[in-house]
Amino acid sequence: MTIKQGLIGIGWLAPGMAMAQPTTAPEMILSMNTVWIVMAAALVFFMQAGFALLESGMSRAKNAVNVMMKNYMDVCLGSLVFWFVGYGLMFGDNPSGLLGMSHFGVSQVSDWDYSLLLFQTMFAATAVTICSGAMAERTRYDAYLLAAAVMVGVIYPIFGSWVWGGLYGGSGWLADLGFIDFAGSTVVHSIGAWCALAGIIVLGPRSGRFDKHSSEARAIPGHNLSLVALGGFILWLGWFGFNGGSTLAAGSDIGKIVLNTHLAAAAGAVGAWLMSRLIKQPVLLTATVNGSLAGLVAITAGCAVLDLEYAALTGLIGGGLAVMGSRLLERWRLDDVVGAIPVHGFAGVWGTLAAGLFVADDLFNMTQLLVQLIGAVAAFLWAFPLALLLFFVLRRWFGLRASTQHEQQGLDFSEHDEVGYPEFHQHATYVRE
Amino acid sequence: MTIKQGLIGIGWLAPGMAMAQPTTAPEMILSMNTVWIVMAAALVFFMQAGFALLESGMSRAKNAVNVMMKNYMDVCLGSLVFWFVGYGLMFGDNPSGLLGMSHFGVSQVSDWDYSLLLFQTMFAATAVTICSGAMAERTRYDAYLLAAAVMVGVIYPIFGSWVWGGLYGGSGWLADLGFIDFAGSTVVHSIGAWCALAGIIVLGPRSGRFDKHSSEARAIPGHNLSLVALGGFILWLGWFGFNGGSTLAAGSDIGKIVLNTHLAAAAGAVGAWLMSRLIKQPVLLTATVNGSLAGLVAITAGCAVLDLEYAALTGLIGGGLAVMGSRLLERWRLDDVVGAIPVHGFAGVWGTLAAGLFVADDLFNMTQLLVQLIGAVAAFLWAFPLALLLFFVLRRWFGLRASTQHEQQGLDFSEHDEVGYPEFHQHATYVRE
Amino acid sequence: MTIKQGLIGIGWLAPGMAMAQPTTAPEMILSMNTVWIVMAAALVFFMQAGFALLESGMSRAKNAVNVMMKNYMDVCLGSLVFWFVGYGLMFGDNPSGLLGMSHFGVSQVSDWDYSLLLFQTMFAATAVTICSGAMAERTRYDAYLLAAAVMVGVIYPIFGSWVWGGLYGGSGWLADLGFIDFAGSTVVHSIGAWCALAGIIVLGPRSGRFDKHSSEARAIPGHNLSLVALGGFILWLGWFGFNGGSTLAAGSDIGKIVLNTHLAAAAGAVGAWLMSRLIKQPVLLTATVNGSLAGLVAITAGCAVLDLEYAALTGLIGGGLAVMGSRLLERWRLDDVVGAIPVHGFAGVWGTLAAGLFVADDLFNMTQLLVQLIGAVAAFLWAFPLALLLFFVLRRWFGLRASTQHEQQGLDFSEHDEVGYPEFHQHATYVRE
Repeated sequence: MTIKQGLIGIGWLAPGMAMAQPTTAPEMILSMNTVWIVMAAALVFFMQAGFALLESGMSRAKNAVNVMMKNYMDVCLGSLVFWFVGYGLMFGDNPSGLLGMSHFGVSQVSDWDYSLLLFQTMFAATAVTICSGAMAERTRYDAYLLAAAVMVGVIYPIFGSWVWGGLYGGSGWLADLGFIDFAGSTVVHSIGAWCALAGIIVLGPRSGRFDKHSSEARAIPGHNLSLVALGGFILWLGWFGFNGGSTLAAGSDIGKIVLNTHLAAAAGAVGAWLMSRLIKQPVLLTATVNGSLAGLVAITAGCAVLDLEYAALTGLIGGGLAVMGSRLLERWRLDDVVGAIPVHGFAGVWGTLAAGLFVADDLFNMTQLLVQLIGAVAAFLWAFPLALLLFFVLRRWFGLRASTQHEQQGLDFSEHDEVGYPEFHQHATYVRE
Repeated sequence: MTIKQGLIGIGWLAPGMAMAQPTTAPEMILSMNTVWIVMAAALVFFMQAGFALLESGMSRAKNAVNVMMKNYMDVCLGSLVFWFVGYGLMFGDNPSGLLGMSHFGVSQVSDWDYSLLLFQTMFAATAVTICSGAMAERTRYDAYLLAAAVMVGVIYPIFGSWVWGGLYGGSGWLADLGFIDFAGSTVVHSIGAWCALAGIIVLGPRSGRFDKHSSEARAIPGHNLSLVALGGFILWLGWFGFNGGSTLAAGSDIGKIVLNTHLAAAAGAVGAWLMSRLIKQPVLLTATVNGSLAGLVAITAGCAVLDLEYAALTGLIGGGLAVMGSRLLERWRLDDVVGAIPVHGFAGVWGTLAAGLFVADDLFNMTQLLVQLIGAVAAFLWAFPLALLLFFVLRRWFGLRASTQHEQQGLDFSEHDEVGYPEFHQHATYVRE
Repeated sequence: MTIKQGLIGIGWLAPGMAMAQPTTAPEMILSMNTVWIVMAAALVFFMQAGFALLESGMSRAKNAVNVMMKNYMDVCLGSLVFWFVGYGLMFGDNPSGLLGMSHFGVSQVSDWDYSLLLFQTMFAATAVTICSGAMAERTRYDAYLLAAAVMVGVIYPIFGSWVWGGLYGGSGWLADLGFIDFAGSTVVHSIGAWCALAGIIVLGPRSGRFDKHSSEARAIPGHNLSLVALGGFILWLGWFGFNGGSTLAAGSDIGKIVLNTHLAAAAGAVGAWLMSRLIKQPVLLTATVNGSLAGLVAITAGCAVLDLEYAALTGLIGGGLAVMGSRLLERWRLDDVVGAIPVHGFAGVWGTLAAGLFVADDLFNMTQLLVQLIGAVAAFLWAFPLALLLFFVLRRWFGLRASTQHEQQGLDFSEHDEVGYPEFHQHATYVRE
């Protein structure tokens, strides 16, 4: 099915024009799949706005522009880099099972390949964006973008090829083991989180976050919790496309996948609420939103193979884990501004295990659990050391962390020469004791 | 059509794999219906973000977190409660015509049932959320969540079973009468509004809203009208899924339904504008947005049976009613923070009547109008007394209203230990005289 | 396929009901096309929210309500006017090739016509909204709405009929020439931009924007860059429907169209970044967002006929043009608040030319380029003088520009009697020297 230029010349393709319409059943199915995957890709794209709002809202006003800019530009750069390099490494012909080696910078391919590249590009951008939140408020803009390019061009796609690779021949070694990661609890979220973990270790915490003389962490509240809640809603919405679109086909199974996704998110927020009560903490909006996101991350691996009650359980535990994980990071004196590592990393590992444990009709299969564990560990062993190296190199030879003076002034001023809210009186710096 | 675990093991389902693809015409239709209903469900879900923004923006900054949290958590709790209880009561086998009695906490059902539950869950969440806006800025968080659980688990689904019930056998008594409420002007919006009315009666107005010595109400302006406008746009967008998805099938009739929806919203804003001019009031952004929402509520009942000009007329009158209704509530010294009762209640009743009056090819059929009136009255008689009882019980034995001190401080501080905008200087309290 | 009222009476249409389901292949294709075009229309509608956020965020806080209200009401009025007048002028029977002359205020038409009208209404609203941003912060509200009605009812649809007209017989003269403008770089975006150009010429700049004694322009920073970034993301998202939906059919070619759209947007932001560096300017968030929008505008004409690398190149140059264009306007002492004219006008012309230059399999065809040039020039010669006349008439006999006092106070106060952020301390006026 091709578009005739003449038809485009008169603008619209009327519905009766046979040439622009599928006529056989396979063509109709291809068209239906295309509609679904494009809509799903649009939803996944929109997650970038969710991340930007969530991360910016959880940061201080003096870094609002910087956080937004990182999110905006990592989609832009990431999409181009993934097209040139990442897609081929991830989905190209994969005889070794270790990386793809064709389809770099594809141009004239089939209609379906375009749709796949579109959808996968949005996934790649998601994986990268996870870092930006954890490393907010103290990372140099140029250094972040460089790191993002390496992640989207190398770290993410090579691991991805182990699980989802081989679309054009061959298959990944984790796939061959029977590793279940339907939409990427490990492939996307854990990989992003381990890169973020490496990043904040190399960066160090924001000034004022940890007291030199006490073991207590100081909370640095975000500047706009309305944006955080909106970001949470948008991410939740986008996840319907993230998980539902991972069928890569317009099938009737999408309903269950999206329902599992929704219930896990709901249960994740409830899990965060219960855990907060259990440890006698106030139930924060930020923790609630992160709880639902942890539920979403956790169900991402198993959304297509779990029954509803196990989906909800997976989300519930994921939400609780996110709350505990944040406290753990604080105890380790690691400064993850938005809680990206508990949400995407800890809940991602849990979800990957849960996907094996709770497979419908094959509950508590220990062999499957072992495979899942291998996959989760492989992700850590691949991404964390590489990212550590990457950020060390950047710190050493390029400069990763903004100067203390710039951090005090805010990166909006020092990096972008713009201010987020120029007309509103603001406290110079706000650290809650 | 089932997903083979082996296929999931290798990650993606390639489009050529026959097993994951519909092959017969009924399978293709089921797949198409699934795609449509899932996208529509996603749009309806997004309405929650719209409500959260609208309600938060119309409240004071000191309650921004509280309003957001209510909206966030009522989706979470509501979705779980509706799955366990509500769906069965509403759609389960319904021999008496009075309530469903099967399909509670469904788990292993057909693909289509999953899709239906997903879509209906989003509707249930919408009905509940209507309350939160009217009762904002003075309701205790825990009490609200308890009330929401009862509404989504009992009040909403039982009424719903009278109109939309009987999916698995039987049918509701209002349906048997021939009551037209295609997407829920009455079932969703009026029910929500009558619960909200009961809530604000039991709660009483915010302190400072009405003067003890004069009959004039004091306006308490919302803290962020940009969020209100964004919320309005998002609700409008979500409504395309709300009404269009209520076909429950991917048919060619969706175009007209969504067009009717759009024109009614546009006309609703114009109606609010004309009415504001008529009563010599300034044309407020809040009134304009509420006017369009009232148009949307009004067309919800009849969007599938009205011609375009009657859809626009229905919306126009709905928008005007919302403006008048707000003034009426003020005269009655009822404090509806966001105008939920005029928008969802008064416009809902009007739309239900209009759906009967303006049926294409059967204009001004008085029998139909009578049926519509019966349905609208039944909704009030069911929901209002029950909700009144619910809120009285909560007030007496649990505590419904925040203390005056907490109300002064703002619920963000007293209930959530978080502040929405910690870095920005704010007036302590703002009441426009 | 019709909905039986009886079926509506019982609420939902169960999936097994044959009457509400397509049964033949043409019916299935029609249903699929409907689903796609309705979802695309929803995305295009959402662009209004994007415009509102972008324009409001780039304006000062004292005009936030006014900008939002213009965006909200121009959809409302525009949709009604386009239904009554514009659709007929644009798509009606077009024997002369100069304007349509049927289908005004359509009511009882075919299912597909409803879907088309819905989609086209969203396009018309987009064209009009472009003006509001350029003319922000100094235009009287009533005058703007009047102008918007003329643009959506006359200027936009008549030009549109030259390119996309003749759905019901006949065809436009530009279409007959072979002019390529798949989704409207010229038809929608340039037309909107030339109207905006006329508007800001007649209006004059905001007070304080240009110094009387120096050639330097003073930057007037927008009040909320978080809203600008969110607006950018939403517009980008909506564009997937704008370009993808312009197939007017659910075909497998949508994937490439949307991918081209996405890559051009990404490249556009990169283009703005490179150009900013080249001219030694800081890389502003506003410029980055506008760069991606310019990429989107530029690819709109050719998204269905270009290969990926040319799509990216088109976007890259578009983004660079937007940066240069903004400086050019400043040099001409024209005050375009949001950069609408560089983004929609300059990048629109470039994209129209690029669509001819880079047609796959027919690269650098000079005849096609000439045709494209004719179309772009025709758009300017049609829209600019007419809009100039329109705004002159409004200024003379109705009043176009707010008084200096109102401009100083902010239009929120003077026109709407509402304040966007009543609780936050704001600087009286902020002009960056």
